[in-house]
Amino acid sequence: MAPRIMICGDIVWAHNEVKELFDGLAEVVRMDSPDRADFLANLESGGRYEGTIAIYRHNSSADRIGIFDREIIEALALSVKWIAHNGAGYDQIDVIACKEKGITVSNTPGAVDDATATTGLYLMISAFRQFARAERNLRAGAWKSGLSSSLTHDLTGKTLAILGLGGIGLRLAELARAFPMRIIYHSRRRNEHAPEWAEYFPVEKLDEFLGATDVLSVHVPLRKDTEGFVGEEMIRKLKKGAIIVNTARGKVIDEAAMIRALEDGHLGAIGLDVYPDEPAVNPRLLEFPQATLLPHMGTETQDSQRKMEVRALTNIKDYLTVGKGKDVVPELQAKL
Amino acid sequence: MAPRIMICGDIVWAHNEVKELFDGLAEVVRMDSPDRADFLANLESGGRYEGTIAIYRHNSSADRIGIFDREIIEALALSVKWIAHNGAGYDQIDVIACKEKGITVSNTPGAVDDATATTGLYLMISAFRQFARAERNLRAGAWKSGLSSSLTHDLTGKTLAILGLGGIGLRLAELARAFPMRIIYHSRRRNEHAPEWAEYFPVEKLDEFLGATDVLSVHVPLRKDTEGFVGEEMIRKLKKGAIIVNTARGKVIDEAAMIRALEDGHLGAIGLDVYPDEPAVNPRLLEFPQATLLPHMGTETQDSQRKMEVRALTNIKDYLTVGKGKDVVPELQAKL
Repeated sequence: MAPRIMICGDIVWAHNEVKELFDGLAEVVRMDSPDRADFLANLESGGRYEGTIAIYRHNSSADRIGIFDREIIEALALSVKWIAHNGAGYDQIDVIACKEKGITVSNTPGAVDDATATTGLYLMISAFRQFARAERNLRAGAWKSGLSSSLTHDLTGKTLAILGLGGIGLRLAELARAFPMRIIYHSRRRNEHAPEWAEYFPVEKLDEFLGATDVLSVHVPLRKDTEGFVGEEMIRKLKKGAIIVNTARGKVIDEAAMIRALEDGHLGAIGLDVYPDEPAVNPRLLEFPQATLLPHMGTETQDSQRKMEVRALTNIKDYLTVGKGKDVVPELQAKL
Repeated sequence: MAPRIMICGDIVWAHNEVKELFDGLAEVVRMDSPDRADFLANLESGGRYEGTIAIYRHNSSADRIGIFDREIIEALALSVKWIAHNGAGYDQIDVIACKEKGITVSNTPGAVDDATATTGLYLMISAFRQFARAERNLRAGAWKSGLSSSLTHDLTGKTLAILGLGGIGLRLAELARAFPMRIIYHSRRRNEHAPEWAEYFPVEKLDEFLGATDVLSVHVPLRKDTEGFVGEEMIRKLKKGAIIVNTARGKVIDEAAMIRALEDGHLGAIGLDVYPDEPAVNPRLLEFPQATLLPHMGTETQDSQRKMEVRALTNIKDYLTVGKGKDVVPELQAKL
């Protein structure tokens, strides 16, 4: 039997295009299970997914079969060797279980940088200028009534503090530099690819970093140790009136602490693309007029979706043809 | 009697600050008329505004006394020699009548470039990515339902066509160049300050310019000869699916032609900050999900308002002290 490639979740590529890409290498099957039980049953001998060697995965598959937790990974381990995740954040995959079972996980890091950083820029502009609020005003027939320019600021000359300077943060830094804004960043390590105008603040200087911040943009991946990383203490050390923008993962911020800081005016505005319990959004957030709230649109562009799919599918093809794909996630790189 | 300076319309500066600025030079009076009749009456002998030599003017004054049309200019001509308008666009002032009456008009050109170009950038991102629509979706409790990434695009690599490359257009070009976008422009004349990467299209190449456009950003001042400048013919020559962004003046675009092009899908999206009949907004515009609509927020930032006021007040002070202020509008420059 020819090895199988499973398409698990949303894809823009037509099925024929994918089949053509893997012509002569593998049979392409689509994950069409209505629920987890059906999915698990069909991975076994005689099932529709039997012999699957690599999986293209999109987060949308979680709607039906749930995230790739230990239960799913253990079932996949029968035959799967590669999970090519379409997305930068892969917190829906238990990479520790993958490591134990010898399954490699790749993501699509660079492909989303541009689209996600553009989302961050949009949220930043809206927060500084109160544009989303202004549009709600107009649509309610109130034109500018109740808006005040005293709450709004130019971006030029302000300080953008980037928390976690990877590809997305670096791209945002480039876009914001055009104003110019002052760019400062805090990461576990100095980013060797960072331009010299991006000022690095190590952990010893974290308080100074927060105190200089006009807008804090969060680009920290979600892991056990980063859950609630932006918490009460960090938020209170931000300059009064500072803005928080999050295009990473909702759980990286302590939402309750952020809401308290909006309530008492310590935070001036927020711009969020991500939430702790998506697609649910805490209704309290909707009550703050100074909040711009997008439904996780970071990578939602035709161009980026296509780029990400090409990356994910190419990683699978490389695995099949040369035994190794690119973009292996950090936790699994050691074993390659 | 000491000459008077009139503050006519919104100002962020405190009255005491303004008084201090003109201490020993002029008495500062605030225009507080409830209507035009009261305003005109008080310009005359014995009125509250008698002896006004210079006026600080903000468009907000039109709410009570109307625009500075010929009737008002003729009444002002009793004593007024300088109108320092706070804003880049001065279409609410009849400059021809001013010229006849020997009144000089200044505006605040450079001060608004940054804030207005940032507004253009925001509208562009929202239109390409459908972010304003996405936020309405979220706030209606629908998360991403009904949104499709097939309607959305990255800005990177797209062509930004700037119609009228003055200070604001040039600033927007710099911000968009960071992606990068390809920057093309059409103006009556080549802008000598334009960087070499901004490609000039003279009138003979206007069709080619429009055909290459992914997003057309309008920066043409409103004059008799620019009313409806972006009309049916120009809109139809745009690439199918193109976006129009307008942060200049509503009447520069033929709104009916733009609406028809949205209805039949020729235009992909629009982002507007200005409307032909502000503060009224054509209710038809609100029905297009792909429209981002701001209530003329272009210069609404504390920083820019302050910068503009400083410019306008400084022009008056220069007139009083050295007989001549800066920023005289082009129509009146010849006589200086």
